Amino acid sequence: MTVWIHHRDPADIATETATATGPLAGLRLAVKDNVDVGGLPTTGACPDYAYTPQRDAPAVAALRAAGAVVIGKTNLDQFATGLVGTRSPYGAVENALRPGYVSGGSSSGSAAAVASGAADIAIGTDTAGSGRVPAAFHGLVGIKPTVGVVSTEGVVPACRSYDCVTIFAADPRLANRAMGVMAAGAPHRPWPADVRLAAPPKPVVAVFRELPDLDPLWRSAFERTVTALSEQGATIVPVDATPFLDAAKLLYNGALVAERYSAVGEFVDAHPESVDPTVGSIIRAARDLPAHRLVTDLAVLERLRTAAMASLAGADALLIPTAPTHPTIADVAADPIGVNSRLGTYTNFCNLFELCAVAVPTDEPHFGVSVLARPFEDAVALDIAAMIMGIEPVEQVWPITAAPVQELIVVGAHLRGQPLEHQLTALGARWGGPVDTAPHYRLAALDTVPPKPAVTRVPTGESGVAIAGERWLLSPAALGRFLANLPAPMQLGAVELADGAWHTGFSCAGAAAESAKDISEYGGWRAALAAGAV
Amino acid sequence: MTVWIHHRDPADIATETATATGPLAGLRLAVKDNVDVGGLPTTGACPDYAYTPQRDAPAVAALRAAGAVVIGKTNLDQFATGLVGTRSPYGAVENALRPGYVSGGSSSGSAAAVASGAADIAIGTDTAGSGRVPAAFHGLVGIKPTVGVVSTEGVVPACRSYDCVTIFAADPRLANRAMGVMAAGAPHRPWPADVRLAAPPKPVVAVFRELPDLDPLWRSAFERTVTALSEQGATIVPVDATPFLDAAKLLYNGALVAERYSAVGEFVDAHPESVDPTVGSIIRAARDLPAHRLVTDLAVLERLRTAAMASLAGADALLIPTAPTHPTIADVAADPIGVNSRLGTYTNFCNLFELCAVAVPTDEPHFGVSVLARPFEDAVALDIAAMIMGIEPVEQVWPITAAPVQELIVVGAHLRGQPLEHQLTALGARWGGPVDTAPHYRLAALDTVPPKPAVTRVPTGESGVAIAGERWLLSPAALGRFLANLPAPMQLGAVELADGAWHTGFSCAGAAAESAKDISEYGGWRAALAAGAV
Repeated sequence: MTVWIHHRDPADIATETATATGPLAGLRLAVKDNVDVGGLPTTGACPDYAYTPQRDAPAVAALRAAGAVVIGKTNLDQFATGLVGTRSPYGAVENALRPGYVSGGSSSGSAAAVASGAADIAIGTDTAGSGRVPAAFHGLVGIKPTVGVVSTEGVVPACRSYDCVTIFAADPRLANRAMGVMAAGAPHRPWPADVRLAAPPKPVVAVFRELPDLDPLWRSAFERTVTALSEQGATIVPVDATPFLDAAKLLYNGALVAERYSAVGEFVDAHPESVDPTVGSIIRAARDLPAHRLVTDLAVLERLRTAAMASLAGADALLIPTAPTHPTIADVAADPIGVNSRLGTYTNFCNLFELCAVAVPTDEPHFGVSVLARPFEDAVALDIAAMIMGIEPVEQVWPITAAPVQELIVVGAHLRGQPLEHQLTALGARWGGPVDTAPHYRLAALDTVPPKPAVTRVPTGESGVAIAGERWLLSPAALGRFLANLPAPMQLGAVELADGAWHTGFSCAGAAAESAKDISEYGGWRAALAAGAV
Repeated sequence: MTVWIHHRDPADIATETATATGPLAGLRLAVKDNVDVGGLPTTGACPDYAYTPQRDAPAVAALRAAGAVVIGKTNLDQFATGLVGTRSPYGAVENALRPGYVSGGSSSGSAAAVASGAADIAIGTDTAGSGRVPAAFHGLVGIKPTVGVVSTEGVVPACRSYDCVTIFAADPRLANRAMGVMAAGAPHRPWPADVRLAAPPKPVVAVFRELPDLDPLWRSAFERTVTALSEQGATIVPVDATPFLDAAKLLYNGALVAERYSAVGEFVDAHPESVDPTVGSIIRAARDLPAHRLVTDLAVLERLRTAAMASLAGADALLIPTAPTHPTIADVAADPIGVNSRLGTYTNFCNLFELCAVAVPTDEPHFGVSVLARPFEDAVALDIAAMIMGIEPVEQVWPITAAPVQELIVVGAHLRGQPLEHQLTALGARWGGPVDTAPHYRLAALDTVPPKPAVTRVPTGESGVAIAGERWLLSPAALGRFLANLPAPMQLGAVELADGAWHTGFSCAGAAAESAKDISEYGGWRAALAAGAV
C-alpha cells in the first residue's frame, strides 16, 4: 500500500468523527505529506528529512475547524518534484483505477486516496501541475486556487513563489465547499475589490490552436468537450499556444528551478543517499545557476505572460488538456525525466502566470481538461468547469467566502432573463436566488425603454405589498460602477426584506414613481409582465 | 559644465517652444540620460554604451505630447548605479546650490538642471533613491510613483524589477501636474479599483523610533518637521525601523544586485576600460552570485516587507529623512562605496517594498524629508507632503488621471465639515469642489440624527430650485461600499447639475421626503443650517 505514508489510528479517527461539527463534519480528509498536520511527521516523501510539527498548517487547520477529520498523510513525488507519482522511497503510487499506469503526481497519494474511496477530500499542492495531473488520471475534480490566496505556511516549499495548496474531490460541489472553507480560514494574499464572481451565461473560452504531444484518443475527447461546451452557448476562440508552452519550459529548463534548491538544496547536498536519484539530480543541478540568469529568465517570463494575457484579452478562460498522455509506471522507469517533462506541457505555465485552474474529468477515462482563468477569477473557472461537467453552477462559489462581496436586490429589468440582466453579468455579478421585500412597498410601471418598475416604500402607516425580487452578489467596485451608470429616475438605497433586514436595492425617484401606473397588486415585475399589465 | 551630457540645439528648442500646446506647453524638460529621447544618444553615462533610439520612451513622449520641450540629456551616476552624482566619465556633478558638495545621484544632472533654473521640470529614475536624494540636496520636490505604474520602457535598466521614472520640480503643483501627464500617458501596471485618492484631514504618520547616521543638525530639522506636522493635526506614531533598514541593506549586500548584472553585466565584462571603476566593481561582483541565494534573499525580503507593512498598519504614511547627511565631493572620493552606501539608508528599501514616495525640502537647506506610502497611495503621500510644505493640497492630485475614479455629489451631512464627512474621507474620497444642481429639485429636512436633507426632483412642469452641493471623487469600490452602508431613507442615483450633466448623487425615498419640512428656499443645506431652519 503506497498511497499512505502515515495512517492515523482508527480509534482516533472514530473519536474525532463522532464529535465533528461544521460544514465538513465527519468528512475523511487525506493530507499530502508535504503539508503539516500537528503531531504527525511531515516527510516530504523523504524519511531522513522528516520533522514533526506541533501545529497544523493553516490550510489543514481551516478544514479541521470545519469538521473534516484527518485520516492520514499521503505519498508524493519527493519534495513535490514530479508529475508522475513514482519518485518516492515509499514506493511508486499506482493509478487507483488503472493498474500499471501512474497515479500522476506529485499529489499522487492524495488523488489515489479519494479515487479509491478511502477519503472524501484530500489536500494536494501544486507548483507545476501537482494538483491537476493526478486529478485527471483519477477522474477527480482538482481546484487549484489563484497563486497566493491560500496560505502555504506549514508546507514544505517546492518553488516558494509558485506553490499552491489544492483540493481533490470526486464531486465538484464538495471540492468547492472545501476550498471555500480553506480560502476563508487560511487567507494569505488579499483579494482585490473588483473580483468577478461568476462567468457570463455565454462565456468566451480560448483553446490552443495546436495541441502538441496530445494522445490521439484524447484529442478526440478534447474536441468532444469543446463541441459540447460550444453547444451550451460558449464561444470558442483559438489562440496561439506559443507563449504558454514557452513559459512551461522555463520552469525546469531555466533558472527558476533554483527555487527548488533554495527550498531543500542544502539538505539534498548534505544527504545524497537519502534522496530519490531523479529528484536529487534535478535539485543538485540548480545549485550553480547564476542569479543574473534567474533575473533574465524572470524578465523573459514577464514578457511571455504579457503576450499570453494579451491573447486571452477577450476570453473568460482557457480550456486545455490537463495532461497530454497517460504513461505506465514502466514508461516512467525507462525515461524518468523525459516522460515527466512531457506530462507538464499543459500545466507548468499556469502558476508562473499566477492563474487559477479547475481540473475536471471528461467522458474519456483518465483524460481530464483544465479550465484556467486570470488571477482571482476562480469563480469564472469554476462556472465554466461546471458547464463542462454538465451540472448547474454551484450556488455559493468559493471565492465569495474570501473576497469582498456586496449585495444588490433587483426587482425589474435586471432580473434573471430580463433585458438588463447583462449589465450585472458583465460586471461579474452572481445570481444569489429569489427574495421578497417586506410588505411595505408599492410597485409601479415606468414608461421607459425597456419598461422598468418603480419600487417605493409606502409612508409609515399606509399599507404596502411585498415585492418579489432577486439577490445578486458583486464586488464593491462592480456595485460602484453599476451605480455610476444608473440612469434617472432609478435609485439605489436600503430596501427592507421579508426577514426585516435591510439590503442595498432598487428604488425610484419619488416624482417619477408617483406618475407611474400602480401595479402593486401583482406583487412583482415578472407577475405583472405575465399578466400583460406592463 | 557636467550637468548636461547632451544639450539640444537652441534653435530647435525655440521652434518647439513656439508651437507647443497642452497642459505643459513650453515648459523646459531635462531628461536623465538613461531615458530615451528619439534621435538623441542614450549613454547611461557610459560613452561606449551609447545608442541612438528612434523613439521617445513612453514617459518622455507623454510629457512632450503635453507640450513640454526637451532641452537636453543630463548626467548621472553611470548606469544609475549610485546616490552621489560623482560616478560619471562626464564628470562629477557638483551641487548646484552648495559648491564642493555632491549633487546626489543617480539623477544628478536632472536635479541640478532644475535647481539652477536651467529646466522647469526634469525626468529622473529611481531604484534605490535616485529620484529623492538629489531632490533633497537641491531643495526640490521629487515624486517617485508606486513601482510599476509608469512605464519603464525605453529606460536603461538598473534593477528592472524596482526601477521607477520620477519627476523633479521646484513647485510641488508643477511636479504633480507633470506626473499626472506621465501616469496617464505612459501607463504600465493597472491601478486597483479601491485606490485612496486623499489623505484623511488628520493623517496618522509613522516615524522611525531611531534615526541612525543622521547628521545632528538635520536631526533637529527632522524634529521640527515632525512637530510642525503634528501641530497641523497629524498623529505621529513611532515605529521600529529594523525591517526597513534591513531591507535597505539587502539591495546591495544581498543577491538582488544580480539585477544590475542582468541589465548591463555583459557589456561591463566586455568593456572593462569603458566603465567607471566603482560602478564596474559593483556590477562585476554580481556576476557569480548563485540563483538560489537570490531566491532566498527574495524570501527574506518578503518577510521584512510583511513585518514593515504590519508596523504601518494603522498609519497613512511613513515620514523619514531623505538622506542622512550631505557629503562633499572629496568625502566621496575618499570612500566611494562607504559614503554612497550610507546615503541610501533611508531610500534603498522603498522600491523593494513597492512603496510610493514624495521627497520635499525642509527649512534646513539641503536636508529633505520623504513621505512614503503604500502601493497606489500616491495621493495620500502627496497630500501629507503638501502639509509638510505648508501648502494647500493640490486639487487634481495626479493619480486621478490614471486610476479608476467615480464621482459622488453630496448635499447635506457629507459636505465638508459636516458630521458625516468622515464616512467619505475614511474611504479615501477627495473633495472636488462646490457644485450646484439644475433648478429642478426640492430640499427638505429629515428628522434624523444627525439631521439630513432630502433632495428630490420635482415633477416635470413644477418649479424647483438649484441645490448647493459638493463633488467628491472616490474609487469604484469606495462608492460601492458607501452605498452598501447607506441607511434608509437616503438613496443614490443620477442628479442633474447646473450644466445639464447627470452625476451620481444623493436623493431620498419619496415618502420620507414628502413628510419632511420643506427648506427649498435656502437653496442648500449650509444656508439652511446658518439660518437656523434645521
